[in-house]
Amino acid sequence: MIKQNTLLFTMALSFLFMAMTKDEVVKVVLFGDSITQAGVQPGGYITKMKEALAKQGIKDKYQLIGAGIGGNKVYDLYLRLEEDVLEQKPNIVVIYVGVNDVWHKTSHQTGTDPDKFEKFYVALVKKFQTNGIKVICCTPAVIGERTDHSNQQDGDLNHYSNMIRNVAAKYDCPVADLRKEFLAYNLKNNPKNQESGILTTDRVHLNDVGNQLVADLLLKMIAK
Amino acid sequence: MIKQNTLLFTMALSFLFMAMTKDEVVKVVLFGDSITQAGVQPGGYITKMKEALAKQGIKDKYQLIGAGIGGNKVYDLYLRLEEDVLEQKPNIVVIYVGVNDVWHKTSHQTGTDPDKFEKFYVALVKKFQTNGIKVICCTPAVIGERTDHSNQQDGDLNHYSNMIRNVAAKYDCPVADLRKEFLAYNLKNNPKNQESGILTTDRVHLNDVGNQLVADLLLKMIAK
Amino acid sequence: MIKQNTLLFTMALSFLFMAMTKDEVVKVVLFGDSITQAGVQPGGYITKMKEALAKQGIKDKYQLIGAGIGGNKVYDLYLRLEEDVLEQKPNIVVIYVGVNDVWHKTSHQTGTDPDKFEKFYVALVKKFQTNGIKVICCTPAVIGERTDHSNQQDGDLNHYSNMIRNVAAKYDCPVADLRKEFLAYNLKNNPKNQESGILTTDRVHLNDVGNQLVADLLLKMIAK
Amino acid sequence: MIKQNTLLFTMALSFLFMAMTKDEVVKVVLFGDSITQAGVQPGGYITKMKEALAKQGIKDKYQLIGAGIGGNKVYDLYLRLEEDVLEQKPNIVVIYVGVNDVWHKTSHQTGTDPDKFEKFYVALVKKFQTNGIKVICCTPAVIGERTDHSNQQDGDLNHYSNMIRNVAAKYDCPVADLRKEFLAYNLKNNPKNQESGILTTDRVHLNDVGNQLVADLLLKMIAK
Repeated sequence: MIKQNTLLFTMALSFLFMAMTKDEVVKVVLFGDSITQAGVQPGGYITKMKEALAKQGIKDKYQLIGAGIGGNKVYDLYLRLEEDVLEQKPNIVVIYVGVNDVWHKTSHQTGTDPDKFEKFYVALVKKFQTNGIKVICCTPAVIGERTDHSNQQDGDLNHYSNMIRNVAAKYDCPVADLRKEFLAYNLKNNPKNQESGILTTDRVHLNDVGNQLVADLLLKMIAK
Repeated sequence: MIKQNTLLFTMALSFLFMAMTKDEVVKVVLFGDSITQAGVQPGGYITKMKEALAKQGIKDKYQLIGAGIGGNKVYDLYLRLEEDVLEQKPNIVVIYVGVNDVWHKTSHQTGTDPDKFEKFYVALVKKFQTNGIKVICCTPAVIGERTDHSNQQDGDLNHYSNMIRNVAAKYDCPVADLRKEFLAYNLKNNPKNQESGILTTDRVHLNDVGNQLVADLLLKMIAK
Repeated sequence: MIKQNTLLFTMALSFLFMAMTKDEVVKVVLFGDSITQAGVQPGGYITKMKEALAKQGIKDKYQLIGAGIGGNKVYDLYLRLEEDVLEQKPNIVVIYVGVNDVWHKTSHQTGTDPDKFEKFYVALVKKFQTNGIKVICCTPAVIGERTDHSNQQDGDLNHYSNMIRNVAAKYDCPVADLRKEFLAYNLKNNPKNQESGILTTDRVHLNDVGNQLVADLLLKMIAK
Repeated sequence: MIKQNTLLFTMALSFLFMAMTKDEVVKVVLFGDSITQAGVQPGGYITKMKEALAKQGIKDKYQLIGAGIGGNKVYDLYLRLEEDVLEQKPNIVVIYVGVNDVWHKTSHQTGTDPDKFEKFYVALVKKFQTNGIKVICCTPAVIGERTDHSNQQDGDLNHYSNMIRNVAAKYDCPVADLRKEFLAYNLKNNPKNQESGILTTDRVHLNDVGNQLVADLLLKMIAK
């Protein structure tokens, strides 16, 4: 009888501990395209976030899950939201999408119309919020780093970023405004008006400085 | 006591009758783009199907529901499949999509990549079949009616039609092969190699003959 | 003898007068696309220039010839430069091109690559200068009048305008910087960030205010 | 006196010889894009033509000049026709262009509109014929070797080939109908409906068999 009680007590404690531990861990899915897919590599922005958390001694409080697939646009995220986000039961999802929706217009004629972009983006946000997941929105950073507004897709990136900001405001989501931050950084650090090499390797994908900038910005928003 | 029995009997009969009636009605959702949106108009292919059923005296056996929205591509169907198909609880769904997935590449730079097209198409078919709905697939008919393979999108329409035929074969869906039928009709009836005016008004949307051709073909597949 | 002398004297005078008259008339070809084609219509910028010259009482000192054809890009100008400019033997040619080179990328997939644009533009300038014709260059004004850099083609228009400014500087041509002037005007007069209606009717073609702005700017450069 | 006569006689003989030699040499400029640029490399179609002439012992009767530049479209040929063709004073020019006019629509949004293609093509033909140069026209062979008409650009390549055939007929130019020949060859030799590897390395540029096919066809038309 005593043994059994002890066992039950131990089990209860374990469950309690597990529950507390579980409560304390903030689970974050980073949901995006090739930039996020690269984010989990050594030097990637998700890897850098984990390293920063480790340094601060709070790495056990956060579980960061990269869910990026190269070439993804907003509707590709919608197609795989159940499996790659909802089933993970995260506390937070970071939506980092939009570059391919604009870029593939010119590279493959398969970009996303602005009205469709907004419709799918809203659908994503609502699905996540309905499931009790906090949504953080990111604006697409750059396709080309020239600072004089002469990158071919600048107009569209600004337009799609405006849409994201508006949706985020309407649905009360914080915004990691990468488009704004990248331009500000380049205005200071790209005096020769280069197309790449400041925050990107190839006008789109992040170099080490770019990964660091994104990691710092997202970490501030997640871990506070 | 007798009265109560009679009442119960009558109710039972009524329910039986309703059940039988319900069983006998075949509910069909026609799921597509502007061609299907126009299909419910006077002279449209869905209207023509209804008229043909009425002539045969079996119009009560079929309920045809048009669910076409202009500009829709395969992923737009995916976004609205719950509301516009599943909630209707149809017996059959006819998927008639693909023209905009190809056409919008050149008109808006927002077409659908072949691999994405196939992925979303398969996702649609599986969702419907999982819900016990029989799926009929249509190939996209034409963007231009020239018969010498010189319409700009001929290559892509053939490619996407091949994908649809393959998916249909794999998932055991009958195919209304509009692409094949339209070319066959034009080879006989378009001796001047015109771009439009034989089965379409504007290279894409159906004229009266085109609507009749689609109505006849689909009716044969649904009502047998 | 006297008669003959008189005749000769009269002829000489006539020729002198013709020569003087000819010397005094400045012949200007305005070489461009649909914007320039519309420029010769009532209310068009070329018509407005003529009206302004008339008001100043110097309309006989300038001959303005509109040579705009809808849909023209830089290489279309090159194809017709002999007939439409050189054969006119003008003193000045105003090159007003670039909108379609950018715009037709998205509307027809038939825009002009930046390097080709520059190559043909330089070829035009050299042909004209070799033939003793003064060249005035215009930057392409707008495709969309939003002032927050979110018009789809803003990046490309800025890029192509930079190329024109550089070519003009290299070949010593004055620049009518319409791109800069239109943005400046919109920043003051387009508080609602509208796409059209301030200087254009449809995001591209000039309304009355737009025609006036272009007329004023070009007149200042030609008639000084 | 005798010495002088001898000298004059020798000079006269030399000039006669040069004149005869010159008369007998047929000078051919092959005017095109990257396919023709590669044609002068070892294994290229122009190199193969030279080797075949050498084998037949008539290599001195023909001078083949490759004038291909990667990425060229019909208007790029027009820009450099003076320097690269007229100044060479050839007897024959082979115009081999059209692939990029179609292909760059999808790869760079900078293809060539059909009506512009025809206009520049006609301008080329007329310039050459006016200068007494015989023109041989080629249709663009392939962008993708699938034989079931499902290569994305098949429709456009057929359309532009039709235009070339019509211009050639109107201006009495023989046609090297590569489009037709390549399809015929693939129908026999591409049973797996592959996209490349039969006559091309990469769907567009010629492999050894493709270079041989073009060399054989053009040689028959030039050396007869």
